[in-house]
Amino acid sequence: MSYRAPVEEMAFTLRHVAGLDAVLAHSGAEIGPDDALAILEEAGRFASNVIAPLNRIGDRHGTLFSDGTVTTAPGWVSAYRAFVEGGWNGVLAAPDYGGQGLPHLIAAACTEMWNGANLAFGLCPLLTAGGIEALAAHGSDDLKGRYLEKLISGEWTATMNLTEPQAGSDLSALRTRAEPNSDGSYRITGAKIYITYGEHDLADNICHLVLARLKDAPAGTRGISLFLVPKVLPDGRRNDLRCSGIEHKLGIHASPTCSMAFGDAGGATGWLIGEENRGLACMFTMMNSARLNVGLQGVGVAEAAYQKALGYARERRQGRAPGSPEPVSAIVAHADIQRMLLTMKAYTAAARGICYLTAQALDAAHGPEGKAAHDRASLLTPVAKAFSTDIANEVTSLGVQIHGGMGFVEETGAAQLMRDARILGIYEGTNGIQAIDLVTRKLPLAGGTTVGAQIAAMRRVAEGLLKDGAPGFGLAAPRLREGIGSLDRATSFLLKALASNRPQDALPGATPYLRLFGLVQGAACLATAGLAASAALKAGETDPAQAARIALARFFAENLLPAAGGLEQAILTGGDFADDPAFALAG
Amino acid sequence: MSYRAPVEEMAFTLRHVAGLDAVLAHSGAEIGPDDALAILEEAGRFASNVIAPLNRIGDRHGTLFSDGTVTTAPGWVSAYRAFVEGGWNGVLAAPDYGGQGLPHLIAAACTEMWNGANLAFGLCPLLTAGGIEALAAHGSDDLKGRYLEKLISGEWTATMNLTEPQAGSDLSALRTRAEPNSDGSYRITGAKIYITYGEHDLADNICHLVLARLKDAPAGTRGISLFLVPKVLPDGRRNDLRCSGIEHKLGIHASPTCSMAFGDAGGATGWLIGEENRGLACMFTMMNSARLNVGLQGVGVAEAAYQKALGYARERRQGRAPGSPEPVSAIVAHADIQRMLLTMKAYTAAARGICYLTAQALDAAHGPEGKAAHDRASLLTPVAKAFSTDIANEVTSLGVQIHGGMGFVEETGAAQLMRDARILGIYEGTNGIQAIDLVTRKLPLAGGTTVGAQIAAMRRVAEGLLKDGAPGFGLAAPRLREGIGSLDRATSFLLKALASNRPQDALPGATPYLRLFGLVQGAACLATAGLAASAALKAGETDPAQAARIALARFFAENLLPAAGGLEQAILTGGDFADDPAFALAG
Repeated sequence: MSYRAPVEEMAFTLRHVAGLDAVLAHSGAEIGPDDALAILEEAGRFASNVIAPLNRIGDRHGTLFSDGTVTTAPGWVSAYRAFVEGGWNGVLAAPDYGGQGLPHLIAAACTEMWNGANLAFGLCPLLTAGGIEALAAHGSDDLKGRYLEKLISGEWTATMNLTEPQAGSDLSALRTRAEPNSDGSYRITGAKIYITYGEHDLADNICHLVLARLKDAPAGTRGISLFLVPKVLPDGRRNDLRCSGIEHKLGIHASPTCSMAFGDAGGATGWLIGEENRGLACMFTMMNSARLNVGLQGVGVAEAAYQKALGYARERRQGRAPGSPEPVSAIVAHADIQRMLLTMKAYTAAARGICYLTAQALDAAHGPEGKAAHDRASLLTPVAKAFSTDIANEVTSLGVQIHGGMGFVEETGAAQLMRDARILGIYEGTNGIQAIDLVTRKLPLAGGTTVGAQIAAMRRVAEGLLKDGAPGFGLAAPRLREGIGSLDRATSFLLKALASNRPQDALPGATPYLRLFGLVQGAACLATAGLAASAALKAGETDPAQAARIALARFFAENLLPAAGGLEQAILTGGDFADDPAFALAG
Repeated sequence: MSYRAPVEEMAFTLRHVAGLDAVLAHSGAEIGPDDALAILEEAGRFASNVIAPLNRIGDRHGTLFSDGTVTTAPGWVSAYRAFVEGGWNGVLAAPDYGGQGLPHLIAAACTEMWNGANLAFGLCPLLTAGGIEALAAHGSDDLKGRYLEKLISGEWTATMNLTEPQAGSDLSALRTRAEPNSDGSYRITGAKIYITYGEHDLADNICHLVLARLKDAPAGTRGISLFLVPKVLPDGRRNDLRCSGIEHKLGIHASPTCSMAFGDAGGATGWLIGEENRGLACMFTMMNSARLNVGLQGVGVAEAAYQKALGYARERRQGRAPGSPEPVSAIVAHADIQRMLLTMKAYTAAARGICYLTAQALDAAHGPEGKAAHDRASLLTPVAKAFSTDIANEVTSLGVQIHGGMGFVEETGAAQLMRDARILGIYEGTNGIQAIDLVTRKLPLAGGTTVGAQIAAMRRVAEGLLKDGAPGFGLAAPRLREGIGSLDRATSFLLKALASNRPQDALPGATPYLRLFGLVQGAACLATAGLAASAALKAGETDPAQAARIALARFFAENLLPAAGGLEQAILTGGDFADDPAFALAG
């Protein structure tokens, strides 16, 4: 069973959880909710019909590396061309250079769809989007004039060249060098690894955004500059850079992960983006949306795994469910299978809600809310990235489990989703780094008022549940209140540790805290959707999807959210393991 | 970094958690603790030096299927021969047919080592052990005389032929047929799938244990019989059976997973094991130890992942840890990496403790304790199987995470462990089925007194912590007491639901209950080890490993065990999702 974009559920979340209508009202795009829905439906058709069928093909074929060139799997070139011709690459980008200028919220939904259909395919425009953002924010007009339009259309693609063998999470250790030429360009020399789509046959040119160090630059991250280094130079010659190999990876086989060599013949030509030694700031510009996009990859692949598992559970017949009139039941009739399916569905919906809230904050940062919304986006981004990708690992693994022995056989496709998903918690900042970012940089934002406001918003949802009183919510109201209590106390504990300059009390709890935040925020998102559904039912609507939303909010609150209390305990009283010499971990 | 058998830690757990000395005292094997340790050390050398180096080779080469034959990876034939010549295949089997007759406890430790070194290799003797057990318990003297000695030596191997395309977890749907011949043998016809080591080049003969249905047999599982169907007949001719293909799998590439065709030329010749239509009872005989062995596979691969991740974390340098004098620290100095490593180590040690306790109960069932120990083994077996393999998935995934981007590249080997581990929660009864077995069949054992006694034993450990009072235990005592309270209340709830004939209240909580049981039992095991360590320190011992055991018990109790409360909530108040029509899961 192939992925179908769940457009109705996505649209409901956009409107009733993330406030799409208000975003559209403040957006320059001048479209209404109906136009937005039409765009989503068209994107859904493209994702389901064009991109999704290439997912298994890409996994089986991988990419072919030969003598510096990379050939993608059969069908990929024409699908990517159709993607470009459909205008899908430019959904978010500003209209000045040909973008559609739609809100982050719409772009987020599209990103989820491309990646639900095919993570390896979705990665290519995801990388290009990062390049567009960095160039648009920091590039000179000349550079923008030369590159932005073709990147926005997708005729050319972009890459991020950060990692080197000795410099993964720690960019201060970079060694790639840049030297100025007399004409204002730079000569780039060095080796990069793990460059996604560093070389491929989908586009005529590839714009490498390369972090490098100028001679005499300050040590550490304050001495890093960002350069645009194109595969093909403006005069049509090949630049002095090449792909020296591709990795054999656990998943996303169709996405080439390249080692890149710059300057074998004296130096690749590049142009500075932004100021010298300010490359990291340029990178940070695009980090919020790049990390959000990886979170959306998690949502997409989790949704794909849920659909596949549900389809299988409806077909596969084994054993007789208690009370069933049939001698053999479809396995979907067994309580344990239902628990797994609902866990998959609930986590996916929760992560979707968190990601869309984050996109909404990015949009609102350009509106009247301004800085408060920007700070909210900063707060939510590590949660959107890490929670969504952590649950993507869990959900895709449950998908394998529901398939039983068939899940372990590659032919079924369930295992591919698990393999593909495994990178999401690692790249674009490991999830451990997201947790540290959340605790040490994001909680203290605006003196703690950003996180305080977010928790207050969750409390309003819990109050809404109490007020609504629909019996279908079960124990959702008290469970959400308990979860918020845990989050609140854990937040205070961490803020106090940071204020007392005791990071050693805060860092051990960073990962449990991010999970706690995601659980409670996710429960609040599902409750918000459930409340909208309840209101619709009270107003006489009869769509059965509305009752399902209430039931899903209840399932999450009663079965998954209760983990909050244990996480709180770990954060508040579990951190003494750090640097305990008894463990002799350092050897 | 390749696996090294952690013999010292295993021996400590065997003696101080699982009571090896008492087992040896009641065993017929007439060896003492020192002899046992010598055996373990020898096994550890064999696992580390002979089996482990083949793990990556096996993953890369897989097995080669051609025209009905299967060729294993380079080096596997000679390693298996060395395994047989070393007498390792017969550790557990009774001496009548050449076995060493050692206790389950010793065999369990050996099984952990073979599988820690190489899951795909360890599977072959694991399957043979199941065949030996079924044949020894139910085979006629004639059949035993013909097959048992060569199976025990390992010159011949055995398989379990259960699954058919329409019959996975649900064996009542089997279609393979058996018809009696005039000479007392049977003609077997049918097709089986997912037959591990169904064909290979490691041994001269393969004894297939095949579940099949006699003509006119009662419907369902009461009409299934078990047959021994050898690849090579006693007169040297090939039997009418063949391997018709092998699967392309997520992991354990070096272990051939075969489709088997029986009776293409009229019928394969087989011999009945046990009585007609009693095949399932014969299968159940060996299920306790087979499931325990799969649990031990989980412990082994988790240990391997921990060792690999620890080795990497000590080498890899990224970022500066707070308070570090060095500009760049080994990543093991970062709190979040420590949290992951200790989570891996603690889960692995907890699962090891549970598995060894289970093996101890199997041994004690033959001693003065008798039926109570047998029931305890039955109770603990699904926990040993499912908890150990669930944590194996989590631990191997954490192993990938610690490697960062390198973890996603197959060359590193971390990803292989995760891929290999993924089957453990599926085969030999999915973990969902283990949970249902635990709740519906094992909790009611002996009127609930079996589980009651087990919880009482955990309470004694918690009291021991209070009495010991070593500050290194931190909050272990109260956390363990809280966890036991959750387990106790959840157990009462489930027993009451079953006694009221309301399985619909019990089944939705089965999986959370198994996790809860494993967490609390695992914490009790680590606390037991910690108490023994504390006593040793008080007696003047200075081995730093003792302090590490106390610290690990604390880490588990403070950071992982607190999940117990949320699981209790899910079990007691979360089950209303089952068959809720709002979800429309059935379509």
